[in-house]
Amino acid sequence: MDADYGIPRQLSDLQKLRSHYQPELPPCLQGTTVRVELRDATTAADPSGEHTIKRFFPHTYSQPLVHFLRATAKVPAAQIITEHPAIRVGVLFCGRQSPGGHNVIWGLHDALKVHNPKNILLGFLVKYFLYDGGSEGLFAQKTLEITNDVLATYKNQGGYDMLGRTKDQIRTTEQVNAAVAACKALKLDGLVIIGGVTSNTDAAHLAEKFAETKWPTKVVGVPVTLNGDLKNQFVEANVGFDTICKVNSQLISNMCTDALSAEKYYYFIRLMGRKASHVALECTLQSHPNMVILGEEVAASKLTIFDITQQICDAVQARAEHDKNHGVILLPEGLIESIPEVYALLQEIHGLLKQGVSADKISSQLSPWASALFEFLPYFIRKQLLLHPESDDSAQLSQIETEKLIAHLVETEMNKRLKEGTYKGKKFNAICHFFGYQARGSLPSKFDCDYAYVLGHICSHILAAGLNGYMATVTNLKNPGNHWHCGAAPISAMMTVKRYGRGPGKASIGVPALHPATVDLRGKSYELLSQNATKFLLDDVYRNLGPLQFDGPGADAKAVTLCVEDQDYMGRIKKLQEYLDKVRTIVKPGCSQDVLKAALSAMASVTDILSVISSPSSVSTPF
Amino acid sequence: MDADYGIPRQLSDLQKLRSHYQPELPPCLQGTTVRVELRDATTAADPSGEHTIKRFFPHTYSQPLVHFLRATAKVPAAQIITEHPAIRVGVLFCGRQSPGGHNVIWGLHDALKVHNPKNILLGFLVKYFLYDGGSEGLFAQKTLEITNDVLATYKNQGGYDMLGRTKDQIRTTEQVNAAVAACKALKLDGLVIIGGVTSNTDAAHLAEKFAETKWPTKVVGVPVTLNGDLKNQFVEANVGFDTICKVNSQLISNMCTDALSAEKYYYFIRLMGRKASHVALECTLQSHPNMVILGEEVAASKLTIFDITQQICDAVQARAEHDKNHGVILLPEGLIESIPEVYALLQEIHGLLKQGVSADKISSQLSPWASALFEFLPYFIRKQLLLHPESDDSAQLSQIETEKLIAHLVETEMNKRLKEGTYKGKKFNAICHFFGYQARGSLPSKFDCDYAYVLGHICSHILAAGLNGYMATVTNLKNPGNHWHCGAAPISAMMTVKRYGRGPGKASIGVPALHPATVDLRGKSYELLSQNATKFLLDDVYRNLGPLQFDGPGADAKAVTLCVEDQDYMGRIKKLQEYLDKVRTIVKPGCSQDVLKAALSAMASVTDILSVISSPSSVSTPF
Repeated sequence: MDADYGIPRQLSDLQKLRSHYQPELPPCLQGTTVRVELRDATTAADPSGEHTIKRFFPHTYSQPLVHFLRATAKVPAAQIITEHPAIRVGVLFCGRQSPGGHNVIWGLHDALKVHNPKNILLGFLVKYFLYDGGSEGLFAQKTLEITNDVLATYKNQGGYDMLGRTKDQIRTTEQVNAAVAACKALKLDGLVIIGGVTSNTDAAHLAEKFAETKWPTKVVGVPVTLNGDLKNQFVEANVGFDTICKVNSQLISNMCTDALSAEKYYYFIRLMGRKASHVALECTLQSHPNMVILGEEVAASKLTIFDITQQICDAVQARAEHDKNHGVILLPEGLIESIPEVYALLQEIHGLLKQGVSADKISSQLSPWASALFEFLPYFIRKQLLLHPESDDSAQLSQIETEKLIAHLVETEMNKRLKEGTYKGKKFNAICHFFGYQARGSLPSKFDCDYAYVLGHICSHILAAGLNGYMATVTNLKNPGNHWHCGAAPISAMMTVKRYGRGPGKASIGVPALHPATVDLRGKSYELLSQNATKFLLDDVYRNLGPLQFDGPGADAKAVTLCVEDQDYMGRIKKLQEYLDKVRTIVKPGCSQDVLKAALSAMASVTDILSVISSPSSVSTPF
Repeated sequence: MDADYGIPRQLSDLQKLRSHYQPELPPCLQGTTVRVELRDATTAADPSGEHTIKRFFPHTYSQPLVHFLRATAKVPAAQIITEHPAIRVGVLFCGRQSPGGHNVIWGLHDALKVHNPKNILLGFLVKYFLYDGGSEGLFAQKTLEITNDVLATYKNQGGYDMLGRTKDQIRTTEQVNAAVAACKALKLDGLVIIGGVTSNTDAAHLAEKFAETKWPTKVVGVPVTLNGDLKNQFVEANVGFDTICKVNSQLISNMCTDALSAEKYYYFIRLMGRKASHVALECTLQSHPNMVILGEEVAASKLTIFDITQQICDAVQARAEHDKNHGVILLPEGLIESIPEVYALLQEIHGLLKQGVSADKISSQLSPWASALFEFLPYFIRKQLLLHPESDDSAQLSQIETEKLIAHLVETEMNKRLKEGTYKGKKFNAICHFFGYQARGSLPSKFDCDYAYVLGHICSHILAAGLNGYMATVTNLKNPGNHWHCGAAPISAMMTVKRYGRGPGKASIGVPALHPATVDLRGKSYELLSQNATKFLLDDVYRNLGPLQFDGPGADAKAVTLCVEDQDYMGRIKKLQEYLDKVRTIVKPGCSQDVLKAALSAMASVTDILSVISSPSSVSTPF
């Protein structure tokens, strides 16, 4: 036990109310019996990476997809687990805090105790799971046994402060060895890792390590990241994304109301969310600001920083012609890396930093064109671009004030246009903001509370089924909780292989990993944005969502992007299995020749079509 | 009517719910009868300024204090107004937007229509009340008649976007003439000005102008400012302050949760609120961050920027000794002007700017010591200090990143201590934030909705009573709405006279004005902070208030500073009147000699004491 637990936590009235909220469980998770259906072996979405993934995950690749079933489900092949020998499970928060994380632990705890009251859940306290840089790895006793008393003040609460967060990664040989040693010393039957793409990638590698060495600890990953970028055919949403978007939308709405009241400022708002623009897109669809520049659009159209500037200036000018001298413009923090020439510059800088060149010497060692761009940029941005990259090789996006850079360039251009007489409106005034940290510690929304709690339960089911290297999944999330489909998918099946490494970092070349899913420019959410872009730009149809509510209107609202996307991959996989089973039942040996012929002909046609459309050349990589 | 009203406003579900909320009226405002009690003539709190105030306000100074009474009140001298001839009233938002402003207009409208359905309320649309810089002053037709239809989507909503906000001031001869012309052209019987100290000062001068020229328009002020600095013996709170503090406290709470989860950052948060530190104090008492530096403390103790740096570094060091490497520190935006040497530097800069010296030449024309300080400061701050001052002669506080300056200095000092070995903790990491704009457009809290609506009603009562140069007031606010005392006080009675002008701006020398009330370092709120400072600093007793709720726990919570201060000046004035009346009743001619003697002796003693303690030498100015 840690000494810090001596000071009682002060909860506000609202926190107390929330701490008594009990999320509901879907029927498939109720009771003490685990009904698990192991379906077909999984495959990677990008067939071209399959060979490499197999090589890295010989023991945990192509494991079957898993569904958990309700008591009334009639699936003869399902495995019914009623006996639960006592197990010891470890759990840790990996990487950045995301609202709802505590509920994963709560759900896991509740399910473990329902299965067997003797089950033990140990939380790894921050700093102690991986001993900073040391090779001994672990203070084995620095864990906290999770009990109802410990959980009491953390149920439905934000932050990761029950345990604190650990380092972002378990990747180097030392880190992996430390983790293995921890699991062995504590005799863990299961280890649950709560985090985003990086942490779940590490979870898969750790699982493979255990499988390879035949050590019985099973590793389970849980998709918890405010970025919303751990998305694939098995995972529809991440814990924390809903809250982050609602809190940010509240603030963006307030900025819109403010802009409309003052009628003289342009607010440039940068949003957290790492490389992908999911948060920016969702917030735009919720609060209807005038404009958003998605990193994915910029990358796809290869827009330069000057193109982006011109685009915004044209928007400002169009609004001025409608007598509007205010506006709100959203920028994702990943935008800076999506701009081709800035990305190339960053690559050069990171390369030099890795060679040990000190920051003040870098500008003199850049290639001529990179140097020219660097010198063109304002001083404050230059300083920020020189920061060391993150553990995933991306720039320190939260520290680069892209909104100030863009506002600065737009202001310069608008002043030029004003002078030249091509712009006849009022003087352009920009005010910049970065929204991120202030949402990250928020009380989680009802959706995140429910989703996280259910995921926690699923982890316990996964361990009861003896599965290793899986991620807990819930699909059909846009429908009410009692219709959610609970399951698990091998993490390695979600991986892709990047053939071209980014910079000289060796870890990122050719190693299979979960990569952040970017906004799909052919998806329904982006289509919705495109349809409304002009209206948003010119008509000021701002929508003030107000503060996050836990009761009444809006309390049960789900993310727009979750609702418009027609996902439920897992549900469809299940449906397909049912069709195949039905064919098998109808065409049993002994059926008529005609039926068999018809079946053969129809199935031949189906398989032909599928062979064609799923050949490598016609599949575009999802990332 | 403005063309913009063609596009229907999109309200979110929560906004719709809120738009149906109906604030309750205290008994004294119910019904069509206005019962007004004119009490004793008022006097300025600072007797030394009285002479000057009288000179500027010969017609509107020393008017009586006004109470509005409930139907059951037994006050024989009260004036009962039952007839309400139809009147025309104008209303405008003056200065910065503050949540709840719309409800003042709604309350005013409802009361006017109750008094006489033929009453007309005209809202002045932004930009049109005072024609920018022109002498013609007014497009008389650019008003919007306020009706139930217009109000429908603005009830209990944030922002000022129903009308937009006008310029911050009605002060220059041209501006005042434009305003007078507007009132005359539109045949206004009343003009209601919604704003803070500056706007209410202007309201008083405009009222005097009308009184002087015997023009019948009555001017009424309403205390609406998020800064919470329009405070005096008559005014307990300002509309918007409650919401701003709650929304900021939500965000600060989230930062605290975040800091505790990450365990490696110090968050430096600058809060909006202009010169005074009311917002910072209230937010501290609500959310319990580790530290706050109030501008008033700095000014009172004449702390230099180095003292402040040392103070924070010592705090960081003390926390590190408790193994805490994170924290949250609040700074009011007015702090920068409270630091004596920085203030002096700003005065020099503003003086030079007024002389027409261009920003890039200023550093060479500063006095040697000011120049030395200027050159010592980081580049980004220098640039911000060179901005032109605001209309009230203060620096552009929202544009000066004091939090970055302080964080920079603290980081430098901590690195020095680390190198010297006097600090043995982890490397100090600061992340900076400015919270202000994102709260200003928020949906108003229930308190602000109620308070603003009631103030709007009072404005109508003030006009019905034919009063000019008054501010609408509600006291006893910490108690439930049916116990609120409604009244009005002459704005000139709230004024003070600053004898020493700030810089060469002539307007600020010797002209009576409402000055921002600063945090009272001898008051109960500050005492509460002092008592808890050590606990806040070391024990991380963070209190996460969560997002603003409109129902359930916390929805009816009032500001801590409002509740701990024992205010209700108006209630006490009334109580005193009752005592005096009682003495008069008991000691009627015909009472016994003994009773008369006792009364004489007691009253002589009372008047002696009061003469002594209210002589100018013993009264300290409240500002």
